[in-house]
Amino acid sequence: MLEQMGIAARAASYRLALLSSREKNRVLESIADALEAQHEAILRANADDLADARAAGLSEAMLDRLALTPARLKAIADDVRQVCGLADPVGQVIDGGLLDSGLRLERRRVPLGVIGVIYEARPNVTVDVAALCLKTGNAAILRGGKETHRTNAAIVRVIQQALADGGLPAAAVQAIENPDRALVSEMLRMDKYIDMLIPRGGAGLHKLCREQSTIPVITGGIGVCHIFVDESADIIPALEVIVNAKTQRPSTCNTVETLLVHQGIAGRFLPALSQQMAQSGVTLHADEVALELLQAGPAKAVAVKAEEYDDEFLSLDLNVKMVADLDEAIAHIREHGTRHSDAILTREMRNADRFVNEVDASAVYVNASTRFTDGGQFGLGAEVAVSTQKLHARGPMGLEALTTYKWIGFGDNTIRA
Amino acid sequence: MLEQMGIAARAASYRLALLSSREKNRVLESIADALEAQHEAILRANADDLADARAAGLSEAMLDRLALTPARLKAIADDVRQVCGLADPVGQVIDGGLLDSGLRLERRRVPLGVIGVIYEARPNVTVDVAALCLKTGNAAILRGGKETHRTNAAIVRVIQQALADGGLPAAAVQAIENPDRALVSEMLRMDKYIDMLIPRGGAGLHKLCREQSTIPVITGGIGVCHIFVDESADIIPALEVIVNAKTQRPSTCNTVETLLVHQGIAGRFLPALSQQMAQSGVTLHADEVALELLQAGPAKAVAVKAEEYDDEFLSLDLNVKMVADLDEAIAHIREHGTRHSDAILTREMRNADRFVNEVDASAVYVNASTRFTDGGQFGLGAEVAVSTQKLHARGPMGLEALTTYKWIGFGDNTIRA
Repeated sequence: MLEQMGIAARAASYRLALLSSREKNRVLESIADALEAQHEAILRANADDLADARAAGLSEAMLDRLALTPARLKAIADDVRQVCGLADPVGQVIDGGLLDSGLRLERRRVPLGVIGVIYEARPNVTVDVAALCLKTGNAAILRGGKETHRTNAAIVRVIQQALADGGLPAAAVQAIENPDRALVSEMLRMDKYIDMLIPRGGAGLHKLCREQSTIPVITGGIGVCHIFVDESADIIPALEVIVNAKTQRPSTCNTVETLLVHQGIAGRFLPALSQQMAQSGVTLHADEVALELLQAGPAKAVAVKAEEYDDEFLSLDLNVKMVADLDEAIAHIREHGTRHSDAILTREMRNADRFVNEVDASAVYVNASTRFTDGGQFGLGAEVAVSTQKLHARGPMGLEALTTYKWIGFGDNTIRA
Repeated sequence: MLEQMGIAARAASYRLALLSSREKNRVLESIADALEAQHEAILRANADDLADARAAGLSEAMLDRLALTPARLKAIADDVRQVCGLADPVGQVIDGGLLDSGLRLERRRVPLGVIGVIYEARPNVTVDVAALCLKTGNAAILRGGKETHRTNAAIVRVIQQALADGGLPAAAVQAIENPDRALVSEMLRMDKYIDMLIPRGGAGLHKLCREQSTIPVITGGIGVCHIFVDESADIIPALEVIVNAKTQRPSTCNTVETLLVHQGIAGRFLPALSQQMAQSGVTLHADEVALELLQAGPAKAVAVKAEEYDDEFLSLDLNVKMVADLDEAIAHIREHGTRHSDAILTREMRNADRFVNEVDASAVYVNASTRFTDGGQFGLGAEVAVSTQKLHARGPMGLEALTTYKWIGFGDNTIRA
């Protein structure tokens, strides 16, 4: 069955690659309209998913993530309309020129072809990803979380109807509706039909894809992010950056998880940190030296466990480690970081420079919050994922990351000498 | 043992990433000089490899590929000196600007880190790859063919000595000297230490890497390339292009393997093709209809076997298939091509355009030879591999393909709103 989907997706991708931006925007508009017009079918499917999820004992917070309402569906449709307004990278001539051989060579941006996306139970991702793929002329094969498989199926049916109404192949957007996990393993080996695989989920999913996929995979989304508070940092603004990086949305991958504090500022900084963190409701997980300075409170402080340096809290918890100097901070990040986002707070230019050059991460910041690592914040217009690997795209991935290029050589029966 | 190499390579990569172009060129110059100065040790190791290879019954052609001479070693050293003259992509600011949030953001080109290369028995590749990696600030872990493992080891010792003499870590360039094949499987799973894997070899090696590697892999180098002779093609120049594409160097991946001939020109074209191919010593493998027109000779013509459409000949053999029209030609390429290089010979603009847009390959040509797909020909200065996948780099890969980028955000204690 999956092979049939692959064949159909590949065939659809050939059609999509030839569409103009205007044609693609027209179908996106009609998808947005259809999502609103057919909200009843989608909300009914969602209600069924929710009933199952409630029966399975999912938490209210989790249920809320799965739930659609007419207002949420409207917001999702509006997101699709916003994608219409973005610049289409397809067709752009990246570079080119006339070679000595007489060959006129250009490098032209083209769609990737077929993109596979595996994601957790979030109905909005189904629409988001479909819209970004269509905008860039790619076909998509989607595999959403099983908790919303009916919702996803209903959404994809609406999208497929809109595609068909627009004279385009419905197979441009397909969902694997069967929640059986074995299908994921099968999908990971469809290198003949899928050109790029984007897993959006936890560390386990990324590991599975890295190990089993024969398709090029974009891994990312896991962020053990650090802030190094240098000796020369300004304490009050430093605390503001830390509050932002830790508490603005603790469940995101660009949230700070570990604070590295220069020993020369620790005596002044840690008591102020504790005050601030108590206000922000953050629990500190401190190493032995830092804990001595923190245990008086007022913030709750506990001894850090070794493995906490390597995992995301995704909660109002923050490691605090005292370091002798910048070298020790960099060494810690190299050992425990996930190459996502790391920041230094300093007034010392030389240290800022060294941090930027020596920390190997998709985004490094000087006197700024790690929370900026985001397609919207970076001005990319949209974000399909955040890559922490180094090939193809690094950091927030916008529309351009859904394209590749093709070398085109024009000759007059030109041969190689 | 491999893990120790990985740790050392990672540490070395941190040092290399900080070097200026001048420092990198200085060490490359000293490597070139050392390769010449220490030719005796290298040639002695090569003689031992050759003796084993001869005893193992390798063909003279193969032995010639393995053999080094003082002149060949000089040429290899000169190639290293040429790499010094290339522009260094590292440090380039790709784009940047001031965001509304006040964050000053730039995207800066940086080395990938550690590059793993698996290649067949060609001593020059050891030097080439080491030089290109060093030029771009990357550490390299090399695994060459077992037939030249002593030569490779001797070359790497010379490189490491030159690195150490220049105050750089010898582990910047390491070779897996043990010819045991099990080490390749182990290398493929070193995702903690290797950032990109480049296999340079046959289809079997690429398949192994795609299936087993947990490291992002650049696959490529396999070329089942096509030329479509459209109805309106000029016959004499078309034959010149075909001779060039087939015979200039038949063992390369950008050599044409299959000719698709429009039925409207076949009656005039195929007899002329046979004349030309007889002169060039090419055997034609024709489908039923083409064979009828070709069997009169003078070129040798045999019936094509179905699997010959999917494999590289790498020899003076050429498939010839008659097609009804451009659609059938495109459909054939989509089914049998390897997305490497395909060409159309035509005078019809609309057909040229359709071919360029609808054939999915790293390089597509209009009235030009497929032999142009090459880093040197494309003006990239050097070529580390030819990628036929779509992520990161497509087609010939120059120095830029050995880099990634890092987002750098400068703020004044700037936070996300």
